[in-house]
Amino acid sequence: MIRFYNGKVLRFEPEMRLTDEEVWTDGNRIAYVGPVKEVHPAFDRQIDLRGDLLMPGFKNAHTHTAMTFLRSLGDDMELQSWLKKIVWPREAKLTDDAVYTLTKLGILEYLSSGITASFDMYVHNEAYARANVDAGFRTVICSGLNNFDADPENIEREYLHFNQYHELVSYMLGIHAEYTTSLDRMEYLASLADKYKAPCFTHICETKKEAEDCIKRYGMSVPLVLDKIGFYRYGGGGFHCCWFTEEDIRYFADHGLWAVTCPGSNLKLASGIAPVEKMRQSGINLAIGTDGASSNNALDFFREMYLVSALQKIYEEDASACPATEVLKMACVNGARAIGMKDCDDISSGKLADLVVIDLNRPNMQPHNNILSNIVYSGSKEDVRLTMVNGKILYENGEFFIGQNPDEIYSEANEFVKSLTV
Amino acid sequence: MIRFYNGKVLRFEPEMRLTDEEVWTDGNRIAYVGPVKEVHPAFDRQIDLRGDLLMPGFKNAHTHTAMTFLRSLGDDMELQSWLKKIVWPREAKLTDDAVYTLTKLGILEYLSSGITASFDMYVHNEAYARANVDAGFRTVICSGLNNFDADPENIEREYLHFNQYHELVSYMLGIHAEYTTSLDRMEYLASLADKYKAPCFTHICETKKEAEDCIKRYGMSVPLVLDKIGFYRYGGGGFHCCWFTEEDIRYFADHGLWAVTCPGSNLKLASGIAPVEKMRQSGINLAIGTDGASSNNALDFFREMYLVSALQKIYEEDASACPATEVLKMACVNGARAIGMKDCDDISSGKLADLVVIDLNRPNMQPHNNILSNIVYSGSKEDVRLTMVNGKILYENGEFFIGQNPDEIYSEANEFVKSLTV
Repeated sequence: MIRFYNGKVLRFEPEMRLTDEEVWTDGNRIAYVGPVKEVHPAFDRQIDLRGDLLMPGFKNAHTHTAMTFLRSLGDDMELQSWLKKIVWPREAKLTDDAVYTLTKLGILEYLSSGITASFDMYVHNEAYARANVDAGFRTVICSGLNNFDADPENIEREYLHFNQYHELVSYMLGIHAEYTTSLDRMEYLASLADKYKAPCFTHICETKKEAEDCIKRYGMSVPLVLDKIGFYRYGGGGFHCCWFTEEDIRYFADHGLWAVTCPGSNLKLASGIAPVEKMRQSGINLAIGTDGASSNNALDFFREMYLVSALQKIYEEDASACPATEVLKMACVNGARAIGMKDCDDISSGKLADLVVIDLNRPNMQPHNNILSNIVYSGSKEDVRLTMVNGKILYENGEFFIGQNPDEIYSEANEFVKSLTV
Repeated sequence: MIRFYNGKVLRFEPEMRLTDEEVWTDGNRIAYVGPVKEVHPAFDRQIDLRGDLLMPGFKNAHTHTAMTFLRSLGDDMELQSWLKKIVWPREAKLTDDAVYTLTKLGILEYLSSGITASFDMYVHNEAYARANVDAGFRTVICSGLNNFDADPENIEREYLHFNQYHELVSYMLGIHAEYTTSLDRMEYLASLADKYKAPCFTHICETKKEAEDCIKRYGMSVPLVLDKIGFYRYGGGGFHCCWFTEEDIRYFADHGLWAVTCPGSNLKLASGIAPVEKMRQSGINLAIGTDGASSNNALDFFREMYLVSALQKIYEEDASACPATEVLKMACVNGARAIGMKDCDDISSGKLADLVVIDLNRPNMQPHNNILSNIVYSGSKEDVRLTMVNGKILYENGEFFIGQNPDEIYSEANEFVKSLTV
C-alpha cells in the first residue's frame, strides 16, 4: 500500500474540486480518499506531497505511439510529399522488434508528461501490446482498417485476442479513415460493431480536402456516410474533427459521440483548427490526443492542453473561450470515458490508481492564484514529479521504472533509424 | 575557468552548424572553442556533456518580468474587463519590494527555460534592476513612456543612470504604445533618440482595434506615424506586430527594424497571429518574446519557439512555413542583436558566456533524426540541464543558484498576492 499525504488532491466527481485529503492505493486500486486518519495500515511507502498536487493522469485519446521513429524527419515539408518521401517508405520497414522499442520510447515520453493511458492506432499490434505490458502502461488498441489491409478479418481475431490479453490492454474497433477505406470495408467494420455491440472510431475530417472529397464521393459528409452504414450504432467517435460542419457537430452531439481533438498535429501539418468551443457548446463529449510524434512532434499533454484552449481563443476571437477547467476535464476524465476506461477517470475509492503528482513549487506554478489555470496555461513536463499507472510508480523525479534502462531504448531506436536506408 | 566537453556545440557564425568541439569559459567570457586540446589550464570545473548540446541561451526580447504576480488571475476573460477589473487595480499596489521579489520569480522561470537575457518594459525600474543584478541575470530595460507618467523627463535620467549601472543591465528608449501616448510625448521620446543616437521600441499593432484606431486618429498606420516623427531614425523596432499591413512590413524591412513576435500572449488574449513568415520573407529581423506572465501565462521559450513556427504553418496553410532553424536563429542570435547584446549572440572565443546545456538523452529528444528540429518541435523545459549567465551557472539539474532560496521567493510572492485585497 502507498500513502500520498500533505498535499492537494484534484477530484472531479460529483464536482471538480481541490481537497486537502490523503489518498491510499492498494495494489492497482485507490483504497481510500479522505481526511487524514489517525490509525492506518502498514504502508509500503508514504509519499509526502509537500503541498504538491495529486491528480488523475492524462489520457492520450489519439496517438500512434511507435511513430516516435519519424520524429523530426521531414519537418517543414508539405503533407503529401512528406507522406510519400518520408513516412511510407520507412513505415514499410517496421518490424516487430522495432515497434516494441519505439513503443517503449513513446511510453517514456508519456510518463514524463503525466500521461497514464493511450488510445493507439498503428501496426504490429502484438509487439505493441507486449511493450505496453512489459512497461506497465495502460493502452487501448484501435483497429485501423483500410484498403491496404491484406486480411480485414484479422480485426475480429485481434478484437477477441486483445480483449482478453492482459488487464492493461484492451481493443476497440475502428477504420483508418473514410478516404482510405472502401465502402464495403467500412460496412464490414460496422457489421463487427453490430455483432459485438461495440463503439467505433476513425480519423475524421482532419483536412479540408478529406472533408470535401467525401462529399464529392458520397454526396454527404463523413459523419453522415458513417451514420448511413450503422458505423456509430453503438457509439464511438472520431479523431481530429477539424472540418466539421454545423450539421456534423449536431450529429455528433445528438448521438453522444466523442470528438478527440489533436491541436498540435493539426497546426504542424497545417490541417486546420478544430471548432472545439462550438463542439463543446453543442454538448459534444471532447477528449484530447497528441497524434503521433511524426506530426506533432511531441507527446506532451501540457502542450496539447494549452493549445486546446489558446487556439479556441484566437479561433473564436474571444479570450473567454474554452476555459482551463474544461480542458482539464477533457484531459483527465473524458479521455478515460471515451476509450472505455470508466475506472480511470477520477480519484476516489475503488478506482484504478492511475495518478500523477504535479510539483507546485516550481517558478512556472507560482504564485498560487489559481492552481488549475497554472496547470493548463503555464504547466510543463518539468512539473511532473511522479506518474503512477495501475498502482505502480513508473516515473519519479525524472527517472523511469519500466523494467528497461532508457539509454538502451534510445540506443535501439537510433540504431533502427540508422538502418533505414530509404 | 569552466570546461564543457564530450558533447555537441551549436554555433551560428559564419553559418549555423553542430560541432564536436569543446568550450572553455574564463570569467564571464568564452575563452576557447575548438578541438579537444591535449594541454589545458587548470579548470575550476570540467563538465562532461555526455553527448548533450551546448548552445547560446535564448533571449526573451519582450517581457514584463514582474507581472508574474498576475499569472492565472482572470484567465479566460475578455481583454478590456480583464485589464480594468484584474490588472490595473493590482498594478497600482505594486511596491519596490514586490517588484524585486516578482522579478526574481520571473528570473527563476527564465533560467528553467534556458533564457539568459530579457528585454523588459515595466515599472519600479530601480528594484527591477537590483533583482537582476542580485540574481546574476542579464537584462535590458526599455522605457515605456505613456500618458500616465507624471514625469517624462525621468526617462532621460533613467537612460543615463541604468546605462552605467552594472555590466548586467542596460537601458533603451521606448514608449508603451501609440494608443497610450500623446503625439507630443512620442515626439519627446524621438528627441531623446536623436540626442543619444539611440534606437526606439514600442508595443505596435498588437490588436486590430489598436491598428484601426491609429488610422482613424492620424490617417496612417502606427509605423508610419512613428516614421513621421523620427522615432526610428536610429533604428529599433516593435513588439507584437500582429496587424501589420504589407506597407508596414515593407517599412520595417526597408529600415532594418526589429519585429519581436509574442505568439503565446497573442493567442491567450485573442489578439491575432502575426504575419511572421511574411515578415521573414520580406527580410525583417525577427526576435521572440514571451510577453508577461499575466497574458501568456508561461515564460517558456520552448513553447514560444514551437508557436512561432506552428502558427505560421496554419496561418499560411503551408507546413513548410517558418522552419525550425530559422526559429532557433530568432531565439538565440536575433534576440541578442535586437537589444544591443552583440556579444551574447553566439558561441565563439571572446563572446559573453551566456550558455545553455540541453539534455539530448530524454525521450522527447530521441531519436536523433534532427537535433535542431527536436529542440523547436518537441523540446521542453524538462530538457534544460544547465543555464549559465555571464559565466556563472545559475541553474543546473533543476536547482537554482541565484543567491536566494526559491522557496523564500515563492513565499514572498504568495504573501504579496494575498495582500492585494482589490
